[in-house]
Amino acid sequence: MEYRRIKDQENYGEKSQTDVENQHGKPFSVGAADSVPSSGVSSTNKSNWKLKSVVTIALTLLTSSQAILIVWSKRAGKYDYSVTTANFSVEALKCTLSLAALVRIWKSHGVTADNTLSTSFEEVNVYPIPAILYLIKNLLQYYIFAYVDAPAYQILKNLNIISTGVLYRIILKKKLSEIQWAAFILLCAGCTTAQLNSTSDRVLQTPFQGWVMAIVMALLSGFAGVYTEAIIKKRPSRNINVQNFWLYVFGMIFNLVAICIQDYDEVMNKGFFHGYSFITVCMVLNHALSGIAVSMVMKYADNIVKVYSTSVAMLLTAVVSVFLFGFHLSLAFFLGSMVVSVSVYLHSIGKPQPQK
Amino acid sequence: MEYRRIKDQENYGEKSQTDVENQHGKPFSVGAADSVPSSGVSSTNKSNWKLKSVVTIALTLLTSSQAILIVWSKRAGKYDYSVTTANFSVEALKCTLSLAALVRIWKSHGVTADNTLSTSFEEVNVYPIPAILYLIKNLLQYYIFAYVDAPAYQILKNLNIISTGVLYRIILKKKLSEIQWAAFILLCAGCTTAQLNSTSDRVLQTPFQGWVMAIVMALLSGFAGVYTEAIIKKRPSRNINVQNFWLYVFGMIFNLVAICIQDYDEVMNKGFFHGYSFITVCMVLNHALSGIAVSMVMKYADNIVKVYSTSVAMLLTAVVSVFLFGFHLSLAFFLGSMVVSVSVYLHSIGKPQPQK
Repeated sequence: MEYRRIKDQENYGEKSQTDVENQHGKPFSVGAADSVPSSGVSSTNKSNWKLKSVVTIALTLLTSSQAILIVWSKRAGKYDYSVTTANFSVEALKCTLSLAALVRIWKSHGVTADNTLSTSFEEVNVYPIPAILYLIKNLLQYYIFAYVDAPAYQILKNLNIISTGVLYRIILKKKLSEIQWAAFILLCAGCTTAQLNSTSDRVLQTPFQGWVMAIVMALLSGFAGVYTEAIIKKRPSRNINVQNFWLYVFGMIFNLVAICIQDYDEVMNKGFFHGYSFITVCMVLNHALSGIAVSMVMKYADNIVKVYSTSVAMLLTAVVSVFLFGFHLSLAFFLGSMVVSVSVYLHSIGKPQPQK
Repeated sequence: MEYRRIKDQENYGEKSQTDVENQHGKPFSVGAADSVPSSGVSSTNKSNWKLKSVVTIALTLLTSSQAILIVWSKRAGKYDYSVTTANFSVEALKCTLSLAALVRIWKSHGVTADNTLSTSFEEVNVYPIPAILYLIKNLLQYYIFAYVDAPAYQILKNLNIISTGVLYRIILKKKLSEIQWAAFILLCAGCTTAQLNSTSDRVLQTPFQGWVMAIVMALLSGFAGVYTEAIIKKRPSRNINVQNFWLYVFGMIFNLVAICIQDYDEVMNKGFFHGYSFITVCMVLNHALSGIAVSMVMKYADNIVKVYSTSVAMLLTAVVSVFLFGFHLSLAFFLGSMVVSVSVYLHSIGKPQPQK
């Protein structure tokens, strides 16, 4: 149950897309928000860079508080809520937030071709794909535990970093420099090192089927992330809230399917929100906000930034946990953090000839 | 006793300097051997590069077989020889080899100003310095074990990598690019990661005095290495065998002092070569040959190459030990090796504008 919760929470973060506009008080200018090809003016570049930094920092902070909430909820005891209903609630909340933001925009700017909810089949037919990919990945997750234990799975999940890099290159056809590739391998090695503990060596005994499943799951997760970026970036002028709305509608539908498959009896007998506590509500809220941040990072930055951001969040979480929960940091953690830091540095200096 | 042996063996490698000429059958051309400032011709560059590769590979292989010999000797049981006499034997053997090489050169090329043994006070007065530095470091080594245990000391020894880089920059005033610095930090982190085991976290409990001593020892060791390079490179046209001869003469003297301080009674009662076995002889021979390789790397490459070479040797040793002794490789080892490999790659692509 614990593992399921962690897994699903991770998924929220990855597929959630809602707008950050209401949080900021006033909506972002749609023009500035739309990505690179349309405008090359330096002030737009600068505001884009600012936007990128803000959403990246927001994602990092939200992801680290996510993990801290998990630890907190574990400490506070187990909650017997259905994970599938929590997933659905997150999707529904994000959907509501997207709609609310759209209503605000319609009121101030009027309804335009870019911010109207009405859409064509040609636009919307790709939106279910990320949700389907995550559903398949979630189903696989129940089987992989036949081959690996949970700590080993945590280690194997770092394969996501590599799969995201590879698929980002293949699907979005964006180039990383040699140094950035080296940095990406280091990010994967550093994150894994930081998570090492006395039982980690067991991952080396993972049977062949376990490896295959871990790699397939990493590919599914990487593909879903990169595909979402492709959908969002395909129409740069389209309002992000509309894009999010459609993504979340399908997220809600597929989570409804998951509820019916896994928790139908429980929900019918005990009610939809059975077992929800204050922490559960905090977690749903946090995941919805993390979703906002992921969405913004996909629109204004990319999957690579997202991977770096969540990796740094993992390290931040550990440091904060020292103060909050009296955790001890291992030597492996320091070494891993050092490698991740160098990786971030190399990624930033290794840009393939910017602005040329 | 075991630790003392390992420590001292490490020192052999670092200060030993003898010539490889007899090994190769014919002496290197003194002209080609002498380093950069005198000649910029591309064929010389190429033969220099070849020489550099050969001595680097030799050093790597000799260093890894060194560690394997240590494991072998441990497996075969303990030998009750005096480490100081073994140190002295290595210095004497290297001195003898240097002389033999010189005799060969005198016969074929005649005695010149570059290959004559006679020297000035001004040339020779710096030669005792590395030997003195190693002596101080060796003395400190007996005290540091009051603060850290042996596995923690193995971890702390990786500080040598950083100290060598920093002193190389300060003393030899050679530049490393930003990427090469990043690579150097990664080398240190990667080597440490590869050595992690269940007891490594104890290093974090090292008291302040332990840290200070470890850092002082790293500085002494780094300084000795860099200073030796400075001595050898100061007179590029001077024959390396003459330079080695004088270095080893002082090495012998200081090791004689060490014998008198530490093992005088034992040597007097049981004899100089008491407790020597076949493996002991192999180890002395191996250390003398490693010394040759270090010397060559200092003359034709530099301390940075030496550090990379011995780090890669450490990884090679572990891999070979799997086959020879049935060792198991840990996940930490794989991650560390990955980071070291990326470091080697980054160092090679990160050269600060070569040939400009």
